[in-house]
Amino acid sequence: MTIKFQHLINSIDIALDENDEQALQKLLVNTSAAEIARLMESLTQKDRLTLWHYVPTRLRAKVLLELHQDLRRSLIAHTDEAELTASLSAVQMDELADIDSDLPITVISAMVQAMDAQRRERYDLVKHYPDDSAGGLMDVDITAVRADVSLKAALRYMRRLRQREGALPDHLDSLMVVDRNNVLLGVVPLSQIISNDLSISVRDVMSTEVTSFTPLNSAHNVAQAFKDKDLLSAPVVDDQHKLIGRITVDDVIDVIQDEADKEVFSRAGLNSHPDMFAPILKSSGRRAIWLGINLMTAFLAAWVIGLFETSIEKIVALAVLMPVVASMGGVAGSQTLTLVTRGLALNQINNKNMAKLIGHEFSIGALNGMLWAAVVGIIAFQWFGDWQLGMVFGAAMIIVLVTGVLAGTTIPPLLKKMGIDPALAGGVVLTTVTDVVGFFAFLSLATLIIL
Amino acid sequence: MTIKFQHLINSIDIALDENDEQALQKLLVNTSAAEIARLMESLTQKDRLTLWHYVPTRLRAKVLLELHQDLRRSLIAHTDEAELTASLSAVQMDELADIDSDLPITVISAMVQAMDAQRRERYDLVKHYPDDSAGGLMDVDITAVRADVSLKAALRYMRRLRQREGALPDHLDSLMVVDRNNVLLGVVPLSQIISNDLSISVRDVMSTEVTSFTPLNSAHNVAQAFKDKDLLSAPVVDDQHKLIGRITVDDVIDVIQDEADKEVFSRAGLNSHPDMFAPILKSSGRRAIWLGINLMTAFLAAWVIGLFETSIEKIVALAVLMPVVASMGGVAGSQTLTLVTRGLALNQINNKNMAKLIGHEFSIGALNGMLWAAVVGIIAFQWFGDWQLGMVFGAAMIIVLVTGVLAGTTIPPLLKKMGIDPALAGGVVLTTVTDVVGFFAFLSLATLIIL
Repeated sequence: MTIKFQHLINSIDIALDENDEQALQKLLVNTSAAEIARLMESLTQKDRLTLWHYVPTRLRAKVLLELHQDLRRSLIAHTDEAELTASLSAVQMDELADIDSDLPITVISAMVQAMDAQRRERYDLVKHYPDDSAGGLMDVDITAVRADVSLKAALRYMRRLRQREGALPDHLDSLMVVDRNNVLLGVVPLSQIISNDLSISVRDVMSTEVTSFTPLNSAHNVAQAFKDKDLLSAPVVDDQHKLIGRITVDDVIDVIQDEADKEVFSRAGLNSHPDMFAPILKSSGRRAIWLGINLMTAFLAAWVIGLFETSIEKIVALAVLMPVVASMGGVAGSQTLTLVTRGLALNQINNKNMAKLIGHEFSIGALNGMLWAAVVGIIAFQWFGDWQLGMVFGAAMIIVLVTGVLAGTTIPPLLKKMGIDPALAGGVVLTTVTDVVGFFAFLSLATLIIL
Repeated sequence: MTIKFQHLINSIDIALDENDEQALQKLLVNTSAAEIARLMESLTQKDRLTLWHYVPTRLRAKVLLELHQDLRRSLIAHTDEAELTASLSAVQMDELADIDSDLPITVISAMVQAMDAQRRERYDLVKHYPDDSAGGLMDVDITAVRADVSLKAALRYMRRLRQREGALPDHLDSLMVVDRNNVLLGVVPLSQIISNDLSISVRDVMSTEVTSFTPLNSAHNVAQAFKDKDLLSAPVVDDQHKLIGRITVDDVIDVIQDEADKEVFSRAGLNSHPDMFAPILKSSGRRAIWLGINLMTAFLAAWVIGLFETSIEKIVALAVLMPVVASMGGVAGSQTLTLVTRGLALNQINNKNMAKLIGHEFSIGALNGMLWAAVVGIIAFQWFGDWQLGMVFGAAMIIVLVTGVLAGTTIPPLLKKMGIDPALAGGVVLTTVTDVVGFFAFLSLATLIIL
């Protein structure tokens, strides 16, 4: 619960200030790995290292998994390798594969050494797929049964499995059903097993309409399918439809959250998992890049204004009003941009409705253009007592609002075609267009009509 | 799978153009409600009504649940009430409660009539809580067992339940354990039932460390807890710790997705579930409000510029460069704003680290300020051959970048304290500040130093 979390953060802060060892230990013992990770991220570099010292070994690996890479690496550097190895033994194959690039070689090799042949093979399998693919998400510890056995036998098998492994895989909501060649036949939900006569066979209760993935399906598509079909878990099969892994909903939730974060942060030119308390030089450097890109576009707009210096010298009111034109274009455009970018992500946009969308947005832009043209025209006239200026201002407003919505509609698909993420670059490209068009339209109209 | 979905959209488009009834029916029969909803949203108003005609009755209610309100209402208006009632009988209590405000009174009353006393009571219970609360999310068809029964007895109970109800509740991953007064004692995962000796009692395998919610816990906090603890389902209890409902992960995924959408869309002043093909007047109206708000802030900036008309008349270069200052401040600020807004949503920010955060951001702003001050100063000097102008430009850049990061750090918590959603209003307030400060700093410095 967040309320509890807020309370936790404050207590931790106090304990850190007083560096009260016992309090810190007590506070962390009943806290989940994800919460500790969120806690770590709210602390300064110095406090992070202090707190890390008190994180129970069994949780450390899980916490590292939840953290963003920079912080993870810095903490790994401050952790005893033996402890690290011990704590890592608790994490799943797919999770280990996600962070192993951050782990010391010695630790990795120690882990791999400890694996039996089968686990090592599975580990290599997961490692071999990108993190943002079904193969990268899948857990390779799968519980599968044969179709011809009875539910009673299935239960017996599960009992033995639990005794052997000590525990069953996390989030076990169903058993995979395979034939003797490990080819996926279907899935039987545990609720089916416990609510049917135990004498009937797995085949009679398994569902054969299974949503399955291949290792190279994108994590985005996997998440979409989980949402569309309300899945708790889904099998991953190879090209011969042999069962190789299982994706669970908790991994999918992380994908959904990461995509959402990425969208919000990339709009501001931040990396997808920014750190509030990253070293100042590092943060400054990352943000400087985005500021630099923006500076270029801003100077492009400035250059356009420069073309009309003489006009501005004659009518200073132009300098006063021109930012209004540009900013309205930017706002109108970003509304459309946001809408279309989302539509693209959901694959809702194709050539056919794109044409309709452009028409639709054009009408909206034109309507709002005329509305606000009237408003600003009157304001400008009242302000500067120049009806020509008012008309030019209004005309420029219509032009920039229409340009804004059209740019907002067309830029995202174009960027996507060029292989650039619209959520990342869309905003900059859009404001460049609206600024340049806005300033040019207003100033050139003024030069032509008033002067 | 999204690839399939892209294909589906195109086939539907073709079928709609040729209005090929058979094709439409065939295409929809194996499509999930969520996919049909996404499909509907990608169509124009006219096509939506045509397609709706072919959506199987059994799916209609589920599709309505997935759609945004405007579209839902318009489709309900075009649906035969008897059909609607029939299809609604398939949805869960909590889902029904979510959309009943959009349904015709006659349909609602027909549904309520059909409920037995117990279900009606449960329905009133869910209706009584807001949609974005644990009470609004919970499903009230709960399967609970007593602690003292054996696993074998639990299985028998489940069998009878399934025979009576026809099916078990969706996403049944565990059974709630209650005492004779329906007070929650614990939860027993189905995986425990199927992997233990059936002769032992539920008490021996149930876990008593259960994350439970009260009906008025916010959906946001529920989602956070599901993420932190990797839950598949969780009980909802009243103030006497009596079991009243159950929240499943599929509902939580919707909450996470909705929050993400809301964040992205509200930054652009769109409602949290905008419609690409909403009626033009409606869309225009909604967007006009945001444009109007922005216009006021833009005129505020314009007014500031107006204070320096005489300076601009003398040095037109000021008019050329001033938008650069403002835009850089806006970008630097929005980076910090995004970071802090997220930190607030995750409850990572309290008074203690706020102070540190301000210091941290100040250093970043100052560093980038000095960097870009040097760059733009040189550019301005090269461009206009006026070293004083270059220095003023650089100084203004430092001021506006520092102002930007400080505003970005302090605005979100202030808005939150005022009960305003930082994700909605933060951007506008920030750019107002950075524009005003940017223009004022640059123009006033120029007036003082150069003139």
